[in-house]
Amino acid sequence: MSAGAEAERVARAALTWVAEPGDQAMGALLRVCSPAEIVAALIEGRMPRLGDPAGIPRLERALGRWAARLGDVAPDPVLDGWRRNGIRLVIPGDVEWPGQLDVLGEARPWGLWVRGNADLRFACLRSVSVVGTRAATAYGTHVCGELAVTLAEAGWTIVSGGAFGIDGRAHRGALAVHGITVAVLACGVDRAYPMGHYGLFRSIREQGALISEWPPGRMPTKPGFLVRNRVIAALSRGTVVVEAALRSGALNTARHAHDLGRPLMAVPGPVTSTQSAGCHEAIRDWGAVCVTSAHDVMQMLEFAVEGAAEREPARPRKPVLARDLLDPDSTRVLEAIPARAGKGPARIAIAAGVDFDTVMRCLGGLAAAGFVERCDRGWRLRR
Amino acid sequence: MSAGAEAERVARAALTWVAEPGDQAMGALLRVCSPAEIVAALIEGRMPRLGDPAGIPRLERALGRWAARLGDVAPDPVLDGWRRNGIRLVIPGDVEWPGQLDVLGEARPWGLWVRGNADLRFACLRSVSVVGTRAATAYGTHVCGELAVTLAEAGWTIVSGGAFGIDGRAHRGALAVHGITVAVLACGVDRAYPMGHYGLFRSIREQGALISEWPPGRMPTKPGFLVRNRVIAALSRGTVVVEAALRSGALNTARHAHDLGRPLMAVPGPVTSTQSAGCHEAIRDWGAVCVTSAHDVMQMLEFAVEGAAEREPARPRKPVLARDLLDPDSTRVLEAIPARAGKGPARIAIAAGVDFDTVMRCLGGLAAAGFVERCDRGWRLRR
Repeated sequence: MSAGAEAERVARAALTWVAEPGDQAMGALLRVCSPAEIVAALIEGRMPRLGDPAGIPRLERALGRWAARLGDVAPDPVLDGWRRNGIRLVIPGDVEWPGQLDVLGEARPWGLWVRGNADLRFACLRSVSVVGTRAATAYGTHVCGELAVTLAEAGWTIVSGGAFGIDGRAHRGALAVHGITVAVLACGVDRAYPMGHYGLFRSIREQGALISEWPPGRMPTKPGFLVRNRVIAALSRGTVVVEAALRSGALNTARHAHDLGRPLMAVPGPVTSTQSAGCHEAIRDWGAVCVTSAHDVMQMLEFAVEGAAEREPARPRKPVLARDLLDPDSTRVLEAIPARAGKGPARIAIAAGVDFDTVMRCLGGLAAAGFVERCDRGWRLRR
Repeated sequence: MSAGAEAERVARAALTWVAEPGDQAMGALLRVCSPAEIVAALIEGRMPRLGDPAGIPRLERALGRWAARLGDVAPDPVLDGWRRNGIRLVIPGDVEWPGQLDVLGEARPWGLWVRGNADLRFACLRSVSVVGTRAATAYGTHVCGELAVTLAEAGWTIVSGGAFGIDGRAHRGALAVHGITVAVLACGVDRAYPMGHYGLFRSIREQGALISEWPPGRMPTKPGFLVRNRVIAALSRGTVVVEAALRSGALNTARHAHDLGRPLMAVPGPVTSTQSAGCHEAIRDWGAVCVTSAHDVMQMLEFAVEGAAEREPARPRKPVLARDLLDPDSTRVLEAIPARAGKGPARIAIAAGVDFDTVMRCLGGLAAAGFVERCDRGWRLRR
């Protein structure tokens, strides 16, 4: 890695400590100023060098706010320390950076802390957000599980938050069928919030990724969850609301998906259930598509992908990456995958001469990139 | 009544005996030929006198078909006989004819056999079709009852078929709160089909109307139900599907409402219920509005009424009829209704010096025309 890229990573890591995600002044400043220059200015207690400081709203107040947090910033070597703990910072320009986040403009994350085996960009190429209320009913839990299982089996990565209820059920559904799942947290990726999801988060790390805009160690704040929701919406091809009361946080995610022009879907339910009222509102008032099955969801997503073929990397009819651009592990795994009858991950690991975790990580990337697909008996090459 | 109008009524009565509702050849012929001339031609076994017989598709075959049924036609005096039995034939041009049916063009009914105390035109000025499956679930039955009760309390006339399940529940809901309800049958209005609805039909006659395109005595046929559905859709301001499986007859009514450009609404339900699958399909694929309460339905109807203010008699902000055009009974009843605190029908009957049935019939018309409204304690003048 070049020294320049690494310096930018260190600087962006510092930004995640000093500025709250979504901070408008920081977003505006990053448009005209490098992260390193911003950090240098904060440390030296001066104005950042930029052409037109007047262009940044309330810049002086913002600088004061950020400088006050300078003491919290982990010193450079800590980035390596986190790395040794399996936590990496993915920043714009990285191969692993999910380019679809750039649609957020100035609200784009300064960087994403990632903990897990999945390659974030690969994993999210074909991903769908499945969100909903913490207070899920038996009905919502059932429907959410069915959706997540079928979507994950079809090679779609599940994206959700880390809460109890629908979020947790969506992850568990994907995990149950060895699918890839990504939890977007509003706390550090080394934290388990809620604590009851400690085990779930560990499984997600193994088979997917925990990601956060907040640095390791940080505990969640209430406004943080809402700020986080825009990342859930922007990361995925589309968002499905499974159950949500009126004024639920899940509707906030839905709103972001709607505003970003991403397909927004909602699962209807009994009109007598307050936990479906938000879904019905989204269908009636925001043009959310009424979906009743994973089949419906996939049809919407494929449709949207085809419509967006010019703008974004589409659902690959051919793989989106040339085969010779794959990393050595992925190449080995790919060569071990049969063309027709499926093969399970354990057998692939033996054939490829790599360990099971590596197979799981690589399969995710290879599936997302369109090389392989899941079938009844494991994995096979995509036709 | 003029002799000409009565001759037309007699001829149209005959048409309901000889030609099935929706018969395309009859619809086309009526565009260029009077009912009396058609009947005369049938009796005399000749071609009807018209400029261009070639304009009517398969006219000769159609004439043969109709002539074969001539023996079934009730002789003239029978119309009076039915009248004495409380059954009247309402035809285009009558004061009681619901003009909104003219949107059906050549598929407009030749006439409507009506049995019941309500004035059909008044009753349907502010009406909504509530339709659904015979095999209603407890959920659908519950929601349907709530909808019908609230809509009827707000002065909306319920229109539906005569089947078990949602249809029956919709009528019962309206009847329970002394609302007006109209059953559109696919058999003669003197028949009870299904037999289990004998009592319900009697109540509907007292508080609303049974109507049919088929003459008295006729039993229903399977295709007749589908043909009948266009009348349900055309008669009302909008159609709500409460529960319907895929390929259900209620969806056929929904399709008609959609094709006529009338507001189409559907009540969502659990995606795990086959009896809600048709509702979800209507929402997803036909643009039916997802409604969760009578409030939603009324909002849609008012909205549509306002949008259609130029074309149709709108929901009256002021009464749609001048007060001095009211019949003497309605005038008496109207004068007995208080401006603020409500008064019950029995007390109104006493105050107006008319019998209870007359009050019920007049209240329907007065509400539909915008003079009076229901309130907690009975009826009051509309502000």
